[in-house]
Amino acid sequence: MKVFQVEGNWSMDSVKLSARPDPVPGRGQIRIAMRAAAVNYRDLLVPLRGYGQRMKPLPLIMLCDGAGVVESVGPEVTRFRVGDRACPMYFQTWASGAPDNRKFEQALGSEVDGTMAEYMVVDETAAAAPPAHLSDVEAATLPTAALTAWRALVTEGRIRAGDTVLVQGTGGVALFAIQIARMHGARVIVTSSADAKLARARQLGADEGINYTEVPEWGRRAREIAGGEGVDHVIELGGQHTLAQSLRAVRTGGTISLIGVLSGGTLAAPLGQVVTRHIRMQGITVGNTDDFEAMSRAMAQHRLKPVVDREFAFEELLSALEHLRSGRHFGKVAIRF
Amino acid sequence: MKVFQVEGNWSMDSVKLSARPDPVPGRGQIRIAMRAAAVNYRDLLVPLRGYGQRMKPLPLIMLCDGAGVVESVGPEVTRFRVGDRACPMYFQTWASGAPDNRKFEQALGSEVDGTMAEYMVVDETAAAAPPAHLSDVEAATLPTAALTAWRALVTEGRIRAGDTVLVQGTGGVALFAIQIARMHGARVIVTSSADAKLARARQLGADEGINYTEVPEWGRRAREIAGGEGVDHVIELGGQHTLAQSLRAVRTGGTISLIGVLSGGTLAAPLGQVVTRHIRMQGITVGNTDDFEAMSRAMAQHRLKPVVDREFAFEELLSALEHLRSGRHFGKVAIRF
Amino acid sequence: MKVFQVEGNWSMDSVKLSARPDPVPGRGQIRIAMRAAAVNYRDLLVPLRGYGQRMKPLPLIMLCDGAGVVESVGPEVTRFRVGDRACPMYFQTWASGAPDNRKFEQALGSEVDGTMAEYMVVDETAAAAPPAHLSDVEAATLPTAALTAWRALVTEGRIRAGDTVLVQGTGGVALFAIQIARMHGARVIVTSSADAKLARARQLGADEGINYTEVPEWGRRAREIAGGEGVDHVIELGGQHTLAQSLRAVRTGGTISLIGVLSGGTLAAPLGQVVTRHIRMQGITVGNTDDFEAMSRAMAQHRLKPVVDREFAFEELLSALEHLRSGRHFGKVAIRF
Amino acid sequence: MKVFQVEGNWSMDSVKLSARPDPVPGRGQIRIAMRAAAVNYRDLLVPLRGYGQRMKPLPLIMLCDGAGVVESVGPEVTRFRVGDRACPMYFQTWASGAPDNRKFEQALGSEVDGTMAEYMVVDETAAAAPPAHLSDVEAATLPTAALTAWRALVTEGRIRAGDTVLVQGTGGVALFAIQIARMHGARVIVTSSADAKLARARQLGADEGINYTEVPEWGRRAREIAGGEGVDHVIELGGQHTLAQSLRAVRTGGTISLIGVLSGGTLAAPLGQVVTRHIRMQGITVGNTDDFEAMSRAMAQHRLKPVVDREFAFEELLSALEHLRSGRHFGKVAIRF
Repeated sequence: MKVFQVEGNWSMDSVKLSARPDPVPGRGQIRIAMRAAAVNYRDLLVPLRGYGQRMKPLPLIMLCDGAGVVESVGPEVTRFRVGDRACPMYFQTWASGAPDNRKFEQALGSEVDGTMAEYMVVDETAAAAPPAHLSDVEAATLPTAALTAWRALVTEGRIRAGDTVLVQGTGGVALFAIQIARMHGARVIVTSSADAKLARARQLGADEGINYTEVPEWGRRAREIAGGEGVDHVIELGGQHTLAQSLRAVRTGGTISLIGVLSGGTLAAPLGQVVTRHIRMQGITVGNTDDFEAMSRAMAQHRLKPVVDREFAFEELLSALEHLRSGRHFGKVAIRF
Repeated sequence: MKVFQVEGNWSMDSVKLSARPDPVPGRGQIRIAMRAAAVNYRDLLVPLRGYGQRMKPLPLIMLCDGAGVVESVGPEVTRFRVGDRACPMYFQTWASGAPDNRKFEQALGSEVDGTMAEYMVVDETAAAAPPAHLSDVEAATLPTAALTAWRALVTEGRIRAGDTVLVQGTGGVALFAIQIARMHGARVIVTSSADAKLARARQLGADEGINYTEVPEWGRRAREIAGGEGVDHVIELGGQHTLAQSLRAVRTGGTISLIGVLSGGTLAAPLGQVVTRHIRMQGITVGNTDDFEAMSRAMAQHRLKPVVDREFAFEELLSALEHLRSGRHFGKVAIRF
Repeated sequence: MKVFQVEGNWSMDSVKLSARPDPVPGRGQIRIAMRAAAVNYRDLLVPLRGYGQRMKPLPLIMLCDGAGVVESVGPEVTRFRVGDRACPMYFQTWASGAPDNRKFEQALGSEVDGTMAEYMVVDETAAAAPPAHLSDVEAATLPTAALTAWRALVTEGRIRAGDTVLVQGTGGVALFAIQIARMHGARVIVTSSADAKLARARQLGADEGINYTEVPEWGRRAREIAGGEGVDHVIELGGQHTLAQSLRAVRTGGTISLIGVLSGGTLAAPLGQVVTRHIRMQGITVGNTDDFEAMSRAMAQHRLKPVVDREFAFEELLSALEHLRSGRHFGKVAIRF
Repeated sequence: MKVFQVEGNWSMDSVKLSARPDPVPGRGQIRIAMRAAAVNYRDLLVPLRGYGQRMKPLPLIMLCDGAGVVESVGPEVTRFRVGDRACPMYFQTWASGAPDNRKFEQALGSEVDGTMAEYMVVDETAAAAPPAHLSDVEAATLPTAALTAWRALVTEGRIRAGDTVLVQGTGGVALFAIQIARMHGARVIVTSSADAKLARARQLGADEGINYTEVPEWGRRAREIAGGEGVDHVIELGGQHTLAQSLRAVRTGGTISLIGVLSGGTLAAPLGQVVTRHIRMQGITVGNTDDFEAMSRAMAQHRLKPVVDREFAFEELLSALEHLRSGRHFGKVAIRF
């Protein structure tokens, strides 16, 4: 089968179109004929061995997001039938429950082979059906970005109607966070450096927008918008350079979901604030199969549509990654097989 | 001041328009000039001493639901100012946190005097502001029925988008449950004996209706509507004669909020079902001040409107109670002062 | 291999020593050489098809409790190595997380073949290591009774030091509940009809005992012992004839774990109590693999020893079941292979 | 009455023995004849206006920890009687439930007057009874340090038997954390720079000690002790210079309770670790009245004794503060009135 993989040595130049033998499903496994994939910021770091020693030795098939159709099943499979649509899960051994080391061992496209392959064989508990109303490309955008937003706001965050959520930027996780927060009746404040992106975020459901270039003290502004008490949740995607503002924005007893490290990987924030205001800072890493199924059910009911910025062909993976790196996108960057 | 109270002996005939001295707020207390009230099924039992030994000795001012305006404040009050609107809370000593015996000791209109008075003096932690967009009469309907539905679905039930909720009937708690479930992105199935009421419930947001006269096995029907797995939550309002169907309807691991005992007060249901399917049956009794404030904030954001069936004048309390008893209402029966 | 199974037709007389081909582990599976088993009350109902239509067609290998040693592993197994001790889990598809229909489909010794076999082949996520300090027979007593007590008190009940727990009787679940409650610093009240059993329960850690023959109003007595407020948790094992007393015993806002139906399967309790006192009644059915591992870790730290009443040989299964039925046991009835 | 207060201007030299009129309890209030107090690290910062603009204007009565006897009660008091022992709560308006801005407004000895007074008048919901088996001095050590450890481990941390807890140092919160963790059946690792203190911590129940002067990579050592997976909870008391090691020590999905900032107030830790390992960092600030009552009940059952390093007389407050600053203490530094 055709694959796109890092081969030879760790570098962006080593990401190549290649071939592998077709995989065969064993007991309890399904074979998915992949139809679409999507790129994430992490995929820019993977070829540089950005996740260190625990990564799979080369060759490594790229990407963690994808969707396809079950094309054959191994013995004793009960959750899928041939013809069902399926998304492979980011963490192949985290089907349910609370996270632990063991459940985080097999991440697609870094610890194990990823989604840029004509076929994937996965355990039936490591895949889930996307909502029926979505196209394959739309379905492929869900397993990482959408599930991260769902885990942060719903499973861990226990969001409820009337809550105020502050979302940083308009990347993949951010846009899903806006949609998922709105689906639960919450109010959303979004930040961006571009008024045009704020306008599009509003169309997607955001209640308020703050241009952080114009308002460097955007944490304070968010607090004011939230009635002076502060916001209930922050979807923290910037990391090093945004956390101090997030701490200004959040209310006493509120939650900051730590998801992204785009602006730098070292925490540098006033610790006293976290202590005296009883803040919860919760690291979030995608979610499990149960989370995906709950999210898929909710999206189906609400006929929620992911925002797809642009589609590339299978052979154009490197162009897709370049487009993501440029930061010019609004929504997910996808690949149609 | 003018009051409506049970006086002399315990009977419906002893519910009388009467007079009391104006109360004076002490330290930490507010005086509310009451403007509206609402009746609940329990108020039909109160004059018969339906809540037993723990009830306040006569005379007892009637009703637990009401709304008004803060007209004066005692020393050291910080949460209210003169002119603020306020609803007194059902449980006067349950401001926050988990329930215990002590927090349940002072219920309005049974353990302590209720809302059918020109003025009420309450602790500032025992009152909360209703949403600004509601009329006084609409605000008066919230403290018991709406807060019960909120506590059941949100605080205890942790409802989330995509959940399916089964609501019994179209009484006060039921209609708020429909609205609150919808506000959180859930799907709602409602039961009634009247197609006209089902039609109105659908207008309010219910997704599906079941006429239980036509479909005696409505629990099974609800399960089918929920995709065969069963519903996530049941708002159980009937009690004795409905619980067996509720157990049919609910999914493994689901929740039944036990709220009402309209059809009889003895549980008579197959216990094995509860055990082997890991069902949670949670008794619900209104909620606390924190719950009310969270609910009020959500309702304000969504500009949710309570359904008021009919308004009566202060002097018409007995007619209002009669109207409630008749079962002909759809929504809350209120009293405008 | 040698097995003990129900064969031919559903009846106690059809429980027979028999033979099956040795099972072979597939991908992700382990083969356990079984060394011990234990009987539970449910095993008296299984031969009578007591769990209805969903049961595996005959022949059905008996029992759900057992322990052994991993004797070979299939491809891709990562959690076990040959030589490790392992207990197969009651629910073969409930590895983690909240329960749902699918996770409850494959119970040992009813929906799928059980532990009375020389070898068992199970998915590696459907087995867990017992504490190292226990004998094989002791380990075999854990998967059902101990895990049920753990799930009730710890996972669902969130027990904490200073809580008071009321435990009914001195059967398998009851004794583990005493030990697990004590391990978390809670106070335990136990009931029995025999003073000798109460004395032994006290040796095991129970703080107080009530002879329910002498004190028919044992619920009230338990409430008094708990300082008048009532107990925090009830481990409800009797069902129909005990629930009314349990409701007397439990405090406002407390929890009743519904586990057993020994005295009858119909709920018959005053519903109003549950509602007005905000009681939680939680159906409990064993627990998942994550629960077992947490329990095993705790038991290893505390060097907790299960109470084994008596051991039988493999061929004496029917005698073991008879001994259980007699009610003369104190602790688990086990089978040494 | 006699008091010890900051008067005139903000400085350590302004902490003086002085006099105030005796306070009179209003409606819902109790007057406590104080008998003992205890000092905390924060009390060294208070005279320097270390908590900024929100602090009470001078004069300010010192300290937040104390215990005494109810000497008179205002009208409508139901929770206390004259003669009861009582500890005033750190946060005077946080009786129950989740924290919010309003509940954090009135901290003793900073936002409002503290415990170094012959009499205190507090709301009856802002005081709680200490365990009966403790002396007044022992009781006075509980409201800040012990309640912080309880909130971190029990209310927020949901500790359970078999968990491993890493505790930093042997200060007030640390020693209570050891005792509370042990009370719940957990395993405790403690760090210190002094072997003698580690030996005493072991006597108090700690299972393992690490001398961090000898083992600079103590986070890694703690992880090894916890079987390589990492510890479940870290009681983080050092702040800036210890957090990186705490992140090494904690397991995937584990919790770090952020309590102290002794070594500096700026977070400086690898953010990527928090994200990719799903760590929860929870700011902790004491606890509420409900927490105190639960803790008091547990301590009474276990007859737990606080470690009191040394007692000073009322007039020796400054010596007590100096002793605390020296770091030579092991356990709480108390003041006997």
